[in-house]
Amino acid sequence: MKKYKSSVVKVGPYLLGGNNLIRVQSMCDTDTRDVKATVKQILKLEKNRCEIIRVAVPDMEAAYAIGAIKKQINIPLVADIHFDYKLALEVIKQGVDKVRINPGNIGSEEKVKAVVDACKAKNIPIRIGINGGSLEKDLLKKYGQTPKAAVESALRHVRILEKLDFKDILISIKFSEVPPMIEAYKLLAEKVNYPLHLGVTHAGTPFIGTIKNAIGIGALVEQGIGATLRVSLTGPLTEEIRVGYAILESLGKREKRFEMISCPTCGRCEIDLIGLAEKTEKFLEKLNKPVKVAVMGCVVNGPGEGKEADIGVAGGHGKAVIFAKGKILKTVAEKDIFKTLEEEINKIVK
Amino acid sequence: MKKYKSSVVKVGPYLLGGNNLIRVQSMCDTDTRDVKATVKQILKLEKNRCEIIRVAVPDMEAAYAIGAIKKQINIPLVADIHFDYKLALEVIKQGVDKVRINPGNIGSEEKVKAVVDACKAKNIPIRIGINGGSLEKDLLKKYGQTPKAAVESALRHVRILEKLDFKDILISIKFSEVPPMIEAYKLLAEKVNYPLHLGVTHAGTPFIGTIKNAIGIGALVEQGIGATLRVSLTGPLTEEIRVGYAILESLGKREKRFEMISCPTCGRCEIDLIGLAEKTEKFLEKLNKPVKVAVMGCVVNGPGEGKEADIGVAGGHGKAVIFAKGKILKTVAEKDIFKTLEEEINKIVK
Repeated sequence: MKKYKSSVVKVGPYLLGGNNLIRVQSMCDTDTRDVKATVKQILKLEKNRCEIIRVAVPDMEAAYAIGAIKKQINIPLVADIHFDYKLALEVIKQGVDKVRINPGNIGSEEKVKAVVDACKAKNIPIRIGINGGSLEKDLLKKYGQTPKAAVESALRHVRILEKLDFKDILISIKFSEVPPMIEAYKLLAEKVNYPLHLGVTHAGTPFIGTIKNAIGIGALVEQGIGATLRVSLTGPLTEEIRVGYAILESLGKREKRFEMISCPTCGRCEIDLIGLAEKTEKFLEKLNKPVKVAVMGCVVNGPGEGKEADIGVAGGHGKAVIFAKGKILKTVAEKDIFKTLEEEINKIVK
Repeated sequence: MKKYKSSVVKVGPYLLGGNNLIRVQSMCDTDTRDVKATVKQILKLEKNRCEIIRVAVPDMEAAYAIGAIKKQINIPLVADIHFDYKLALEVIKQGVDKVRINPGNIGSEEKVKAVVDACKAKNIPIRIGINGGSLEKDLLKKYGQTPKAAVESALRHVRILEKLDFKDILISIKFSEVPPMIEAYKLLAEKVNYPLHLGVTHAGTPFIGTIKNAIGIGALVEQGIGATLRVSLTGPLTEEIRVGYAILESLGKREKRFEMISCPTCGRCEIDLIGLAEKTEKFLEKLNKPVKVAVMGCVVNGPGEGKEADIGVAGGHGKAVIFAKGKILKTVAEKDIFKTLEEEINKIVK
């Protein structure tokens, strides 16, 4: 498959698509009409590196709240709207940075045109959001609940906007299962060149949801598809953000704050490696510096396999060696391993 | 890329490669010489669906222990050996089901031939295990620590075995980073047709390790590569198995025991969805029946997006609807949601 080259849209300060950074977003689970609670949640997500935030706008009261929310937050705000064009017009008036609405569900051409004209005037994009679980009846009849049906559905909405000469479009095409999700985005990428918003919908609890999102989003990003992503988990929103970054960092698409490699323990390991790795990871999360650390179980493979690390530790019998770039610095007693590692890391980042 | 078609090898009762099921394995972190502890760990892993188990064999005492371990367990046993051909000969004598050893590191041709002849006589395969962190110096000089160097290293070992007319080969080619890992396996798959053992080595703690393994193993399995896998985590071994199955199940490569889809919560959700999803998931893990359940936050999208589910629940204001195959069965008060869902699931699986 040839590399997917997408057009670029602007969402607040961010350019999405093309060769721009893939941005990590989430969606509030507060009642949007409750401005205070929604702002509080968004500010917390900002601190956790959320870059774009979406809120549900199910009624006019929620639409009116957008302006007040927008004023109190620092990241681009997206309104999620179903069917009602008046809600779209209101959130645009209130200063939203992107609207998620499917033009084919708005109604008459006049209504669609009103929304499109408002977006054009404010220079904000529309995301077409397709869910494998909510496809049009005629498409389901023709293709079943398949990637093909979802892509055809997306293209219908795209054509409506293109007919009105509107090209500030993003598209998502989510399924709750990984294989159709991957297939749908790949099929879509052959038909359009708009920036794609990636996600596995209703992926589940943090355990299985993390795995499904990592495989689905990961497979597409690895193949060059994706301008922004939302990891969907039935769990804390901060975890969605954390998983999103971890996927992108694992694929070298966002800069790692730090890196830690560690062994699976094996019969050669004679120290408490799991405890040491978890302590070290927590220390590094807090330290927040670009350092590469290896936490290895044995001296046989440790310094060699960890030789790319700025600093590393390899366990032995009641003791461990501390090494840097593969060269052994010192030997320490087991009880002093973490303390010494911490000291050596602090030296490096200074 | 054309679909990878691999040859087939036999490990205990399992055929690996070709169109056979991808098998999930792990590696003991006990001292192999401690037969009792090792057997205890393996029996626990068997209960957690581990299908193949590997143990480190660093010395002759560990090699002698293989027979006693083998007698007390029910899954195929693999010996992990570095350099020493005498250890290989001993574990083969002791009845091991597969040997992981790199023939290029054994020494003289006679020694390699002795190991190969012993494997042939017992009809057991050899896994060549390449780690990006332990490559030959001349290859590092020529290619750097790259997928190309790792593939060239693997091919050297392969040629040694092929020269001795030995083809019962599996190959792994692990890196601790996802992009070179994916690239190395893909490159290797263009050069050989042996069954491939997948893994990201030293992937890290359960959080980041799960994500790295899911992306790396997932991307390859999705493209048809992989005969067996070992998820490597610095964490409990049972978690390695759980993640391994979750990856394969997410890609439709192993049968799901059960399936649960659930919403990310959003502004429309008025019940405790996270709590409900986690309770339901635990119930389903224990129930262990092939049922598909949807746990959805709102009646707007719930029954529609969950219409593939055998049974589902969609939250409302202080209450919820229970639905089956998209049709609403009944409305229940919030406090009765889980109890009713449990009852309805029990009815279905009966």
